[in-house]
Amino acid sequence: MCTWERVDFAVKDGYVVGLGDYQGKQEYDLAGAYVVPGLIDAHVHIESSLLTPPEYARLVLARGTTTVIADPHEIANVCGAPGIEYLLAEAARTPLDILMMLPSCVPATPLDAGGAVLTAEDLVRFRGREEVIGLAEVMNVPGVLTGEPDLRAKMDLFEIIDGHAPLLSGRDLNAYIYAGVQSDHECTTFAEAREKLLRGMYIMIREGSTEQNLRDLLPLVDACTAARCCFATDDRHADMLAREGHIDDCIRKAVACGLEVEQALRMATLSAAGRFGLHDRGAIAPGRLADFCVVDDPDRFRVARTFKCGVEVVDTGYRPPACPAAPLRVRVPEPGDIRITGRGEARVIGIVPGQIVTRDLRYMVDATAIPDTDRDILKAVVTDRYRAGGSGVGLVQGFGLHEGALAGSVSHDSHNIVAVGVDDGEIIRAIGEVVRLGGGLVVVSGDDVTTLPLECAGLMSALPHEEVVGRLGALEEHARRLGAVENPFMYLSFLALTVIPEVRVTERGVFDVRAFEDVPLFL
Amino acid sequence: MCTWERVDFAVKDGYVVGLGDYQGKQEYDLAGAYVVPGLIDAHVHIESSLLTPPEYARLVLARGTTTVIADPHEIANVCGAPGIEYLLAEAARTPLDILMMLPSCVPATPLDAGGAVLTAEDLVRFRGREEVIGLAEVMNVPGVLTGEPDLRAKMDLFEIIDGHAPLLSGRDLNAYIYAGVQSDHECTTFAEAREKLLRGMYIMIREGSTEQNLRDLLPLVDACTAARCCFATDDRHADMLAREGHIDDCIRKAVACGLEVEQALRMATLSAAGRFGLHDRGAIAPGRLADFCVVDDPDRFRVARTFKCGVEVVDTGYRPPACPAAPLRVRVPEPGDIRITGRGEARVIGIVPGQIVTRDLRYMVDATAIPDTDRDILKAVVTDRYRAGGSGVGLVQGFGLHEGALAGSVSHDSHNIVAVGVDDGEIIRAIGEVVRLGGGLVVVSGDDVTTLPLECAGLMSALPHEEVVGRLGALEEHARRLGAVENPFMYLSFLALTVIPEVRVTERGVFDVRAFEDVPLFL
Repeated sequence: MCTWERVDFAVKDGYVVGLGDYQGKQEYDLAGAYVVPGLIDAHVHIESSLLTPPEYARLVLARGTTTVIADPHEIANVCGAPGIEYLLAEAARTPLDILMMLPSCVPATPLDAGGAVLTAEDLVRFRGREEVIGLAEVMNVPGVLTGEPDLRAKMDLFEIIDGHAPLLSGRDLNAYIYAGVQSDHECTTFAEAREKLLRGMYIMIREGSTEQNLRDLLPLVDACTAARCCFATDDRHADMLAREGHIDDCIRKAVACGLEVEQALRMATLSAAGRFGLHDRGAIAPGRLADFCVVDDPDRFRVARTFKCGVEVVDTGYRPPACPAAPLRVRVPEPGDIRITGRGEARVIGIVPGQIVTRDLRYMVDATAIPDTDRDILKAVVTDRYRAGGSGVGLVQGFGLHEGALAGSVSHDSHNIVAVGVDDGEIIRAIGEVVRLGGGLVVVSGDDVTTLPLECAGLMSALPHEEVVGRLGALEEHARRLGAVENPFMYLSFLALTVIPEVRVTERGVFDVRAFEDVPLFL
Repeated sequence: MCTWERVDFAVKDGYVVGLGDYQGKQEYDLAGAYVVPGLIDAHVHIESSLLTPPEYARLVLARGTTTVIADPHEIANVCGAPGIEYLLAEAARTPLDILMMLPSCVPATPLDAGGAVLTAEDLVRFRGREEVIGLAEVMNVPGVLTGEPDLRAKMDLFEIIDGHAPLLSGRDLNAYIYAGVQSDHECTTFAEAREKLLRGMYIMIREGSTEQNLRDLLPLVDACTAARCCFATDDRHADMLAREGHIDDCIRKAVACGLEVEQALRMATLSAAGRFGLHDRGAIAPGRLADFCVVDDPDRFRVARTFKCGVEVVDTGYRPPACPAAPLRVRVPEPGDIRITGRGEARVIGIVPGQIVTRDLRYMVDATAIPDTDRDILKAVVTDRYRAGGSGVGLVQGFGLHEGALAGSVSHDSHNIVAVGVDDGEIIRAIGEVVRLGGGLVVVSGDDVTTLPLECAGLMSALPHEEVVGRLGALEEHARRLGAVENPFMYLSFLALTVIPEVRVTERGVFDVRAFEDVPLFL
């Protein structure tokens, strides 16, 4: 019984008082329109939008989202607890409810120096905060399975614990859940999601810029399971938010895949609220927050108006945001720092189109023949951004560039500066431009320089979202002119992600994920 | 997607470790049998079974129940906080998980002296206890709506609050929910339950000895709503438990009404656990309690074996229970105390077959012509049991007795001694017998006396459940011989229930529920 009810409802002091026959001091005539509870994003990294929280909120509130469950591990990796405080403070400046799960894996691995280390001890101070509701995606699966003490201590701090366990199954999956992890947003196949669901996990169906799992996972959702499934955007950049939307986009996609809109709505509202024990929202019902949005037609699901705590959300426009204190300390490499020498079989990081995973490729390489634009084998460089440290060099196939270089300060998870290019000089110029901006995304080719400054911790732009979207387009266009594949910055941002197989490059050099160790470029 | 999975599972230290391919020190071969999570009763008054908790547990564990959510207001009305402590102590002596909701309305109304008063202050001491999980059925609906301060204070102590709001709807219902009440088990019609569900309440479908709402409410349950519905037995006497069962009985009845057994199981397990935030049970999944039962055939749903925390429940037989200190202090009335005089229009309490409500009837009555067995108008007496106080007298129609008298110390909610009879002498003898037993149910006619002692607080028997069932049968049979309707003790036990319309008798006399005041017998 999923029905629509034609009824008035009354709101007072931010809460729904009741549904039925009421009069109010102020009355909104929505006759004919459909009202649904405010939408909820079950797992998101706001930093990945490239916008500061107030700008992010401007975009998503307009799409009917009233609550997001944010994991601030990006900014925490850059500047630790002060970064989390920054996000909490910025969150308070917007009507959007930004609830926070504390990052469980900063740094992502013990080998990643990054900008900060957060132990269980460091998380304790955040525990009593009203907006802090649990422990974020526990990515260190081996640490869970071996009972790594500090991770165990973090998990013991919270009742609500999200997971991150791509491809985990069987006995290891059981053990991971036994240890206390309650959800996962990393499922890529129906079978994987089904197994996790059957073992008691909440399934967050993720649809972001980088990973789009909705189409594959949606068959999991029916009237029986919808209460245990919700939507998460995880990493969704400003341009995708602007053009396609947010959780409203997930709903439309789900409907297009054949799910009843009422079930999709349930996932986006009541189920997400239920997962986190947020009994004050997720439904338009007495005693709950008056968070709701107005749509003209449920099946087309276009959000026309959004109300948060009973107040209509009006976009008051851009205001320059605060930025956290997280200066870059970078020693821009010189050509000698990124020179490679040698000849023989070399490891090459193979980009996989549409995915974050990389392939550990082998090629016969002559260092003097790099760049090898015929085989699309280019140099990749990661430069430490915290301690004016060194740079690591690797080789990568799949970017497609025939000239120029790309560089960026978004580099999961440690967010050092990462660059790929055809020419060492351009690579160095691109890195230098990132540093000059105080962080950003850069495309360089000769005299042409296209940038998006990300001066807030090297992760977020202080610009209005419209301008960020425009610049993202310009970056994409410039890169395309240089021969780059689509979404080059996405691949760039994951080149150093040491927790995802198979092979990566860090400020130390090439890293074999499965062996979990630094390895030489040439075998 | 509600499916059955053919799989092994492993248990250690009371918890499910995992499902899949495991070996164990001890292995149970259940090949061919169906295993479901242990069943959960969402709302029950154990005292109403007439059994002490360990005897109650013997019965229901065998039926696959592993958790009950108990509201001890019966014993709390008799002897206050020590009564609650008694139940908590007795609960610890059985493998059954007896979780407790603290009684919100002791006494039921300010006019009911009863054996105890429990204010918010009195409840505070129980709050940190592991087994105490919330506030029990908030019956004082007017008190909620007017914000009665002590009730508000009680509600502010807990996040989980159950309701009791028969026939409440519209704006009052909205206000009741707004105030924090999250569930209801008093729905009698589909429409009532649907409205409450749509306003965000969990619906507990109640099927007990006194009230059987399952058949009428079951159409509310489908795959969409099952997550918000669960089963409650509320008041289920030992004989019904023995003959028909417990939550297993609710499941069989639901299936007989056309519900898929998987949905009924969900209600009885995951939904009930979810309502109370008991994420450690309700499913056979890693990290959850190894509470499960084995059935041969889901559709017939007969529980063959029950396991609690991974240990098979074996009935180790009866052990004499402890009893709480709750002595009767009764001045057995003398004929002059229960004499009525007068002639004219009188209020007569009209029993409604199959219901707790009574009708406020009017008859021309000559006191000297009572008992009036032609019109089936008999004397009803309630005698104070706490302070050797007085007796109140009323007239009741519907018991059907043509001789003898019934008396009992179960008299919701204050549990004074209540009696109905044809002859004043027999009424007094029956009351005296109850007192002599230290509490009990009694049928008296001439030299024939049939009893069930309820020496534990006047509510529960210290006898084994088999004997209690036998004696209940003997009482029923004796009463029937005297002309009584079926279930006379059920009607007797509610004769003084001042919170349910329309008219009642108390130790003070006749009580008009809707006017909420004591009224004279003759108008």
